[in-house]
Amino acid sequence: MNTIGERLRLTTFGESHGPAVGGVLDGYPSGIRIDFDYIADEMRRRRPGQSAVTTGRMERDEVEYLSGIMDGVSTGAPIAFIIRNTDCATSDYDELKDLFRPSHADYTYQMKYGIRDWRGGGRSSARVTAPICVAGALARLALEKRLSDLDIYAFTSQIGGISTDPEDEMTFSREDSEASSVRCPDAEKSAEMEDLIWQLRRDGDSIGGIVTCIIRGCPAGIGEPVFGKLHSRLGAAMLGINAAKGFEYGDGFACASMRGSECNDPFVIEDGQITTSSNHSGGIQGGISNGQPIRFRVAFKPTPTIALPQQTVTADGIPTTLEAAGRHDPCVVPRAVPIVENLAALVLADLIL
Amino acid sequence: MNTIGERLRLTTFGESHGPAVGGVLDGYPSGIRIDFDYIADEMRRRRPGQSAVTTGRMERDEVEYLSGIMDGVSTGAPIAFIIRNTDCATSDYDELKDLFRPSHADYTYQMKYGIRDWRGGGRSSARVTAPICVAGALARLALEKRLSDLDIYAFTSQIGGISTDPEDEMTFSREDSEASSVRCPDAEKSAEMEDLIWQLRRDGDSIGGIVTCIIRGCPAGIGEPVFGKLHSRLGAAMLGINAAKGFEYGDGFACASMRGSECNDPFVIEDGQITTSSNHSGGIQGGISNGQPIRFRVAFKPTPTIALPQQTVTADGIPTTLEAAGRHDPCVVPRAVPIVENLAALVLADLIL
Amino acid sequence: MNTIGERLRLTTFGESHGPAVGGVLDGYPSGIRIDFDYIADEMRRRRPGQSAVTTGRMERDEVEYLSGIMDGVSTGAPIAFIIRNTDCATSDYDELKDLFRPSHADYTYQMKYGIRDWRGGGRSSARVTAPICVAGALARLALEKRLSDLDIYAFTSQIGGISTDPEDEMTFSREDSEASSVRCPDAEKSAEMEDLIWQLRRDGDSIGGIVTCIIRGCPAGIGEPVFGKLHSRLGAAMLGINAAKGFEYGDGFACASMRGSECNDPFVIEDGQITTSSNHSGGIQGGISNGQPIRFRVAFKPTPTIALPQQTVTADGIPTTLEAAGRHDPCVVPRAVPIVENLAALVLADLIL
Amino acid sequence: MNTIGERLRLTTFGESHGPAVGGVLDGYPSGIRIDFDYIADEMRRRRPGQSAVTTGRMERDEVEYLSGIMDGVSTGAPIAFIIRNTDCATSDYDELKDLFRPSHADYTYQMKYGIRDWRGGGRSSARVTAPICVAGALARLALEKRLSDLDIYAFTSQIGGISTDPEDEMTFSREDSEASSVRCPDAEKSAEMEDLIWQLRRDGDSIGGIVTCIIRGCPAGIGEPVFGKLHSRLGAAMLGINAAKGFEYGDGFACASMRGSECNDPFVIEDGQITTSSNHSGGIQGGISNGQPIRFRVAFKPTPTIALPQQTVTADGIPTTLEAAGRHDPCVVPRAVPIVENLAALVLADLIL
Repeated sequence: MNTIGERLRLTTFGESHGPAVGGVLDGYPSGIRIDFDYIADEMRRRRPGQSAVTTGRMERDEVEYLSGIMDGVSTGAPIAFIIRNTDCATSDYDELKDLFRPSHADYTYQMKYGIRDWRGGGRSSARVTAPICVAGALARLALEKRLSDLDIYAFTSQIGGISTDPEDEMTFSREDSEASSVRCPDAEKSAEMEDLIWQLRRDGDSIGGIVTCIIRGCPAGIGEPVFGKLHSRLGAAMLGINAAKGFEYGDGFACASMRGSECNDPFVIEDGQITTSSNHSGGIQGGISNGQPIRFRVAFKPTPTIALPQQTVTADGIPTTLEAAGRHDPCVVPRAVPIVENLAALVLADLIL
Repeated sequence: MNTIGERLRLTTFGESHGPAVGGVLDGYPSGIRIDFDYIADEMRRRRPGQSAVTTGRMERDEVEYLSGIMDGVSTGAPIAFIIRNTDCATSDYDELKDLFRPSHADYTYQMKYGIRDWRGGGRSSARVTAPICVAGALARLALEKRLSDLDIYAFTSQIGGISTDPEDEMTFSREDSEASSVRCPDAEKSAEMEDLIWQLRRDGDSIGGIVTCIIRGCPAGIGEPVFGKLHSRLGAAMLGINAAKGFEYGDGFACASMRGSECNDPFVIEDGQITTSSNHSGGIQGGISNGQPIRFRVAFKPTPTIALPQQTVTADGIPTTLEAAGRHDPCVVPRAVPIVENLAALVLADLIL
Repeated sequence: MNTIGERLRLTTFGESHGPAVGGVLDGYPSGIRIDFDYIADEMRRRRPGQSAVTTGRMERDEVEYLSGIMDGVSTGAPIAFIIRNTDCATSDYDELKDLFRPSHADYTYQMKYGIRDWRGGGRSSARVTAPICVAGALARLALEKRLSDLDIYAFTSQIGGISTDPEDEMTFSREDSEASSVRCPDAEKSAEMEDLIWQLRRDGDSIGGIVTCIIRGCPAGIGEPVFGKLHSRLGAAMLGINAAKGFEYGDGFACASMRGSECNDPFVIEDGQITTSSNHSGGIQGGISNGQPIRFRVAFKPTPTIALPQQTVTADGIPTTLEAAGRHDPCVVPRAVPIVENLAALVLADLIL
Repeated sequence: MNTIGERLRLTTFGESHGPAVGGVLDGYPSGIRIDFDYIADEMRRRRPGQSAVTTGRMERDEVEYLSGIMDGVSTGAPIAFIIRNTDCATSDYDELKDLFRPSHADYTYQMKYGIRDWRGGGRSSARVTAPICVAGALARLALEKRLSDLDIYAFTSQIGGISTDPEDEMTFSREDSEASSVRCPDAEKSAEMEDLIWQLRRDGDSIGGIVTCIIRGCPAGIGEPVFGKLHSRLGAAMLGINAAKGFEYGDGFACASMRGSECNDPFVIEDGQITTSSNHSGGIQGGISNGQPIRFRVAFKPTPTIALPQQTVTADGIPTTLEAAGRHDPCVVPRAVPIVENLAALVLADLIL
């Protein structure tokens, strides 16, 4: 299934080293003026090679729009777009054709399909997140027109053992995150994270991390009971990002150690409005937004591509050692930040528009 | 959306204090002999009032099958079933009619629908998990016929600060879990957890926890790329269970602190078969099963119903204090164990059958 | 697939001679007061045995509502309902257990499922249209609240060789149709049709016919381009009714013989509004309603159950003769009238609500 | 909704005069060798300007494949493809910008979206059928591998008042149809039809017609009960083709005048196999194929674009006269033949693969 959404549906396509990746966004409202520069900026945020700590493949990631837009305004017809793959050094992958890279999807694709596009991971490559960013940026443009206060903000909250203080979360700003090469708004932690990534690059190794997302301005009443809960939708979407290993919202896994009397959010009246005096719930109760900031976190594993030699087997079942020569990124977490934001926008737009 | 699944689709209905809860399971294969006793056992496992530590509402939870089965064998037509609500002490809830219980879905349902079934939580009650267990048990019967080695096993791995050792996980057994009043297979931890729950009952408070699920015997190649990844499907389903706050698979959030060289699962040859020498991936790579045991964990918050007085507001916006008199369960985690298992069966059956 | 609709989704279940038929209607708006008497009336309209010309099975068709309604008002939760099968003379069908009735679904169900519920046609019985009427009546209640001018009116326009004059269609009234035992608003034709049906009853034979439906008060702009066109949705729904063989809208098959200059509907200004001076289009252009009355017709084959002896084979492939003893209805068309109306309501509500 | 199919899903996009039309075909099996020449041939069959009787827009209709295929073999990933619009004489349509062409979708799109792509009909143009032919041809390649006897054959059975004899249908051949400029396998009728179309071209008028489709080699057991009947699926798909006004299968509307004893298909034994001695059912009983040839017919209205002056109104509500200067095709029926075939292949593949 390469489609996400019920009313606003994104279908993506494309492989790492095929002619193009792209998507079709169906159900997009008519009459939205498309800010192409804004979308191009989001593409730049996702792109590898933005800073010293995330070098790797260089792609211009120019988006070509094929339909659904006339004179810069959406018509209500599906918006199709493509991004050509230009920097396809397929020969880098020749040696990978016949072996299974550990903790990549090579083996599982082979088992599922009986064939796999071995060039740069094919359909399992993180390159498939590029269309998600285009569609998510389109979704944000449509959401903004409806909800002027909506703000979807994600940042790097952990890399390796270095993490920001949850107490500080609500004070973090996009300006501070974007000023950081690792998209961590805490300048001190950011510096430590950057050092750690440099160390790993030198070691030929990689490292995992966590992205936290805070959504302000989402009205109460969004989400569906039982199987379409807001956090189920967000969770399913986020877990679909390459390398994602976990999702939690509100106090998440920490709730396991909490008492009801600590974890419950008392209702209070503030400025004549019903609100809660705490937000352990993360803005969602019974699967439906309550008007408080929506908070969730996504855990990412270290990228499985490392320069260190690794034990593996060939497609013929012969043990061998893999010493990856190709480009790689020791930590994908900073690049996951715009993906998390744009994917969250897509999920919200599907429920709200 | 009250439907889950693409090919095997469960639609559930019913409120805590309406005439009945139930479901329609569509896409179920024909020719499966239905073991009604097995399903009744699963219903008993889910039911409140099974042991001293989970007292509360007493329901017989008798399942009436309305369609899709002839002479005990499935016909391929949708299987509809209902479970009558019999122990509906609606008057217990009279005082809750006009106020919002903290961290329940009262407020969000009111905001979404402009009306809410205030009797026992209505559609947001954990009673809606009863049909999930019926459908999941049906799914297991169909899966078993196809995959004789499949084993879906869940247990309580944490309650409050007490948790089992992850190192021991692969040695735990259903016999040991089911012998425990809290469904924890580690006898020592089980006793501590039980003590803790008694303490909370005395305190009028509640506590959260974690359920771990291990699926053995799932063949490689199950799951869909990009938006239908096996862990996205499992995650979305599990996050839909009442009180769920987080989902992780494989090493989950711990991966954030790991290096690629630690986290990768090397491929090796064992008994002439390709396998991995470790399972940090939790049996899933690129969203597709690799034949290793699938491991995931679901975090649950403490049940928001507590006996301690709580600050809240009425529907008219008047601050008030809630002192809940109704029945409650200080820890829902042991009862979540069969729900996790049956929901996992439903997700797998949707992908496999 | 036993589900229809995207936003307002009806899932039905049940067999002719199982415990019950029923449905779950999900996506129904909250706050609608349910007129149970109105729904009961619609059930009476569909029921066999309403008049001399449609005798057969006698069912009370009492609807039991299981969820989604509190104090007579919809809550937004799925509305589940069941109708018990009471007049199940299963023994009537004993002799049919091992043979395939011509032009029934016995053979195809056997080929698809390897098993079939032979009691009264099982899931392929026209009894499955009872839940459609309940759901359609619910849909009409919700539509009425939104669109006070909406009027969905169907009638018998042909039985055998006797048909009403298309020129008269826009003058027909529900009062006249419902006064007719065959639901034909033209009194003269109605008498002829009734005579024909009596003749067929005497002959032990059956006859086909056509139902015409006219929807007034549907606003312009309803329907989706390409694969979700309003007439595709209506067509798919109507073709799903038992015994339906064809669907056309506007001038339908007659368009094949028309010239563009005859068939086009010129735009004109009437009372300051844009409208068309003719309605060959049947109220739909490019799959989207244009504000004119929506007109469509559904062709039904003669019911395959006849008293005359018929050649067939047993499940073991032995040629035999079938002489049906069970109850039957020589013409299902009058009973199809409320089904067409209610199904049209369901399709419209899915697109409009 | 721009998506068709449940398991094999085609999402199309593109407007008549935008950069490109195209589609994404998801759920396509892996390991199918793609015969690009075959697809190109199907594109040629659909293309305008194939013969004197169907002149109009000239497009090369070259298909560019963007994903899902490696070294000419499908990988299981979604297959995206685009067809650039090259012959876009947008200026031809300048005068149409501000008026509503009768019986086109101009007015209804304006009412639905508040904006419309007026260039050549935008999304409502028949150009959107090009991607359907690509996807349908891909579907046929996959079906052929599974069902070697499958043959999906459509032909022009009526244009204006000239129609082929239904008695001859089962003897018609693709060779004869394709040899005819109007795709009518009866040479005499073909000549009459061609004369009629020339006459209409001279008159500046257009004419409707009917396409008949016969599918041989479809096994018994294909289709779903109740809302997913094989003929509902086929009907919904066919009614989605531009200008389609009706759909019938088997004896269709003629069944309205038939008796059960005439219309029923007796089961007989032939060569030791169960079959029917007639095929009034059109190969489908209870919504499921019975192994007999599937027969259905699709009625098309005359194309609404004619050279004769027509009364209409401007977007501002001013009465005016339209004298269309643009290219047009007096009869779309011959070009609908490959669309019907390829769309039928898509529907079958969705149910069978």
